[in-house]
Amino acid sequence: MGSNTFRLVVFRYRPGGSFQLVDEIRHAVRLSAGAGPEGLHPDALERAGHAANLYRAFCDAAGVDDVAAVTTSAVRDGANRTEALAALSVDGGLDVRVLSAEEEAWYGYLGAVNSTTLTDGHVLDLGGGSVQVSQVTGRRLGEVVSRPLGAVRMTERFLAEEKPGRADIRALRRHVARELEDLDWLAGAGGRMVGIGGTIRTLASMHQRSVRYPLMGELHGYPLPLSGIDDLVEAMAALPASERSRLPGLKQDRADITLAGAIVIGTILERAGVEAIEICSQGLREGLFYERFLSPADPPLIPDIRRQSVMNLVDTYRCDIPHVEHVCALALAIYDELARLGLHAADASEREMLWAAGMLHDAGVLVDYNDHHKHGYYLVLNAGLPGFAHHELAMIALLVRGHRKGLPTLSPLEDILRRRAARSPERPADGDEGTLRRLAACLRIAEQLERGRARGIRSVHMSATKAALKLDVTAIGDPSVALWSAALESPVVQRAFGRRLELGVAFPAA
Amino acid sequence: MGSNTFRLVVFRYRPGGSFQLVDEIRHAVRLSAGAGPEGLHPDALERAGHAANLYRAFCDAAGVDDVAAVTTSAVRDGANRTEALAALSVDGGLDVRVLSAEEEAWYGYLGAVNSTTLTDGHVLDLGGGSVQVSQVTGRRLGEVVSRPLGAVRMTERFLAEEKPGRADIRALRRHVARELEDLDWLAGAGGRMVGIGGTIRTLASMHQRSVRYPLMGELHGYPLPLSGIDDLVEAMAALPASERSRLPGLKQDRADITLAGAIVIGTILERAGVEAIEICSQGLREGLFYERFLSPADPPLIPDIRRQSVMNLVDTYRCDIPHVEHVCALALAIYDELARLGLHAADASEREMLWAAGMLHDAGVLVDYNDHHKHGYYLVLNAGLPGFAHHELAMIALLVRGHRKGLPTLSPLEDILRRRAARSPERPADGDEGTLRRLAACLRIAEQLERGRARGIRSVHMSATKAALKLDVTAIGDPSVALWSAALESPVVQRAFGRRLELGVAFPAA
Repeated sequence: MGSNTFRLVVFRYRPGGSFQLVDEIRHAVRLSAGAGPEGLHPDALERAGHAANLYRAFCDAAGVDDVAAVTTSAVRDGANRTEALAALSVDGGLDVRVLSAEEEAWYGYLGAVNSTTLTDGHVLDLGGGSVQVSQVTGRRLGEVVSRPLGAVRMTERFLAEEKPGRADIRALRRHVARELEDLDWLAGAGGRMVGIGGTIRTLASMHQRSVRYPLMGELHGYPLPLSGIDDLVEAMAALPASERSRLPGLKQDRADITLAGAIVIGTILERAGVEAIEICSQGLREGLFYERFLSPADPPLIPDIRRQSVMNLVDTYRCDIPHVEHVCALALAIYDELARLGLHAADASEREMLWAAGMLHDAGVLVDYNDHHKHGYYLVLNAGLPGFAHHELAMIALLVRGHRKGLPTLSPLEDILRRRAARSPERPADGDEGTLRRLAACLRIAEQLERGRARGIRSVHMSATKAALKLDVTAIGDPSVALWSAALESPVVQRAFGRRLELGVAFPAA
Repeated sequence: MGSNTFRLVVFRYRPGGSFQLVDEIRHAVRLSAGAGPEGLHPDALERAGHAANLYRAFCDAAGVDDVAAVTTSAVRDGANRTEALAALSVDGGLDVRVLSAEEEAWYGYLGAVNSTTLTDGHVLDLGGGSVQVSQVTGRRLGEVVSRPLGAVRMTERFLAEEKPGRADIRALRRHVARELEDLDWLAGAGGRMVGIGGTIRTLASMHQRSVRYPLMGELHGYPLPLSGIDDLVEAMAALPASERSRLPGLKQDRADITLAGAIVIGTILERAGVEAIEICSQGLREGLFYERFLSPADPPLIPDIRRQSVMNLVDTYRCDIPHVEHVCALALAIYDELARLGLHAADASEREMLWAAGMLHDAGVLVDYNDHHKHGYYLVLNAGLPGFAHHELAMIALLVRGHRKGLPTLSPLEDILRRRAARSPERPADGDEGTLRRLAACLRIAEQLERGRARGIRSVHMSATKAALKLDVTAIGDPSVALWSAALESPVVQRAFGRRLELGVAFPAA
């Protein structure tokens, strides 16, 4: 029950296994709107009580086993806290916990580190009432600061006019800068910063639209540049509050408060010396969930985010685990053999994408066996893989699509890969097209070797001449299906490595 | 193991529950190619033996529980049947059954009637060696005819030249007509005809491309007009066999035999007085499967094809059955109340689409809760619903998409609906747009009334004034979540029925 938005999320999970968000209700309650020295405004408490009552009824009715109701800055800092809690708790129907600033930061941190690969850097969580900035070192929570610089509060204090002037904006920036002045650990820290909260998601959504981002709507993992925030501040400031929802991506119920929020975020990024903030679509609510999901782990951290993301989808899409694990083992063995032969450079990121695609290559069978490579592409791309960058997600989805039938091609997602290429110079010599061709060749040969689903091919050994790649297998049982099937991939090998594929059976030395 | 194509399909099923095709291998063996008075050609038997050996190895390795290996016309009619069976059975490794012409027709019939709503009409099954035409009356198999007019045989006999002439085509037409001459039950029978086999699927695929069909690749249920078959015959006949695969949709390994197949099919349609043939992507293989799946039912017929199709997806996409069934019950009750008030005409087809969409509305949650209406649209459209026409499938998918968030719109599938509109004059007065708006309003109100997932709203009673639709509920427990949620759908009701939505609680008369 936040200072701006109330939200109910329902997770279904197997403890220690997979989890899914299965329901969500959201209300723009504006709990902190109109708050004064006497505390929260009676109208706000009435709206809050109404929403809380609905949530309690929902939890009762839906048979939710375990309800965690929390509230944050607005109630914490309000002078009429007892009265506010009575309204939110629906006269005892909900057991509402008022999070301290430290707890609020803690749960935001848990949401962020359990859905991103952040190990060292900062988490910025901007709500309606307050902002938390947390330092993360070796995945552990370090320094924390909480300031009452939330988007609703700053709007009411500095930008309440229908059309605020330049001076108002400057005053807000000065105020934020002053509040952060004494934080030596933040000043010019640089490095990664992960951003949480509705305001930052809104800014990312607006920015994606303004640059026609090819994975529109895939907010989690989106790098929002400081320069983009500045542009959005300009665009919003040029319009009266009542007209700002004309800007693509800006919803009516956030049209007034997003300008102040953007200024707070931009000022913090400047202070921290950070060029871009990575959007995290999870936060405090997911942090509360992870505490339960990972119990009794302390701190409740998922050991390997990428692995968890992939295994979550393997479970959801009911992939045949013995089969896909064997395909992965073979694909990675082929990848490593090719590296040993000097036909490509071994690369940890490529290897991990190959593993992920191997685990998920059959996901689309759930929709229809026909075109299951295309359905798998849709399922992976749209479910997303927290912990993988968007260009990695794109590559994994393209590998799933390219694991059978036509030769794999970048074309459906070329744009997302090109944008990444423009940003990062450290890429394989043969570019993304080369990566896709090489990884797809490994995956396709492995899939064909495991065509019989019997895990009969136990190992591979490769050798190369100028014209041919020879792949010898050791097998339990008859390898004829495997070898016949793998031979079909010669064109893919030719395209990736300029050599035809030859297959044989290796007899282990006596 | 057909006369042209060998195919291995693997089904996973719960007896009497749901089923899925989970694997498939296909080889263009051309078993009947080169067959003469001494029987099947030695080269063909060698190719066949190789494929059969692979299939046996696959079944062993993959741990398939129950293998049904069958072969048809080529072996049945070949003079060297014993030799052929030895090759196909891999020296006893596979227990191969040679189907009689009657059995071949029977399994094709089972595949067709268990995946379409055909109750009365005909099934045409064109293979490489033979063609079967079966009469269906009240879903039961009636008259059957089998003739050695398969696509490979007719190609070898009449169209073996690289570029056959007009006279060759006329000779083939005359031959087919003569073979069918004595079938009084077929002549001018009219009505529905369902078509099975690789040739007819290929023709449908070519036709979809030539008319830029909006559901490209959705072959099952596609109505292929006789005029379209004639056009394709012209297009193929104008090219030498070796260049025909340039025609969009015509694969290399069928480029030579599809012309003869198209002529046979066209001639049969003319003879039967049928204007269009409905493509069935299932056939003999699925017929064999249904015999097992439906055991001990005799005849093995799915009682309600449409219901089975929907429930198959409900199971696959793990929909919450108590919730979706309650949403369906409420949506249909609202639909019926609106009909009672004269606000629309009760229509059985609309009602069934509403039911299907209600059962599947949450399917997309499996992919991601965010945008789950869009994911559900993809999942339903791409899995398909055998037994529903394409325009019904399109409408169901649009309803799933339109069950939440933005106002429902035809636009993603407008084209498929427009094509249908051109064919069938009997449509609701307000067109497909009206159907979508009205059904979406019913579904959205029902979903909101069941927002709490507690099945607390037991019945609805509606009344109408010029400006408002009043909906009163009887409820177990507190209906506040339900009523508050349903009130959000007033704009959708306004758009569909020109009235605002008002909600209340009905107290049953004492």
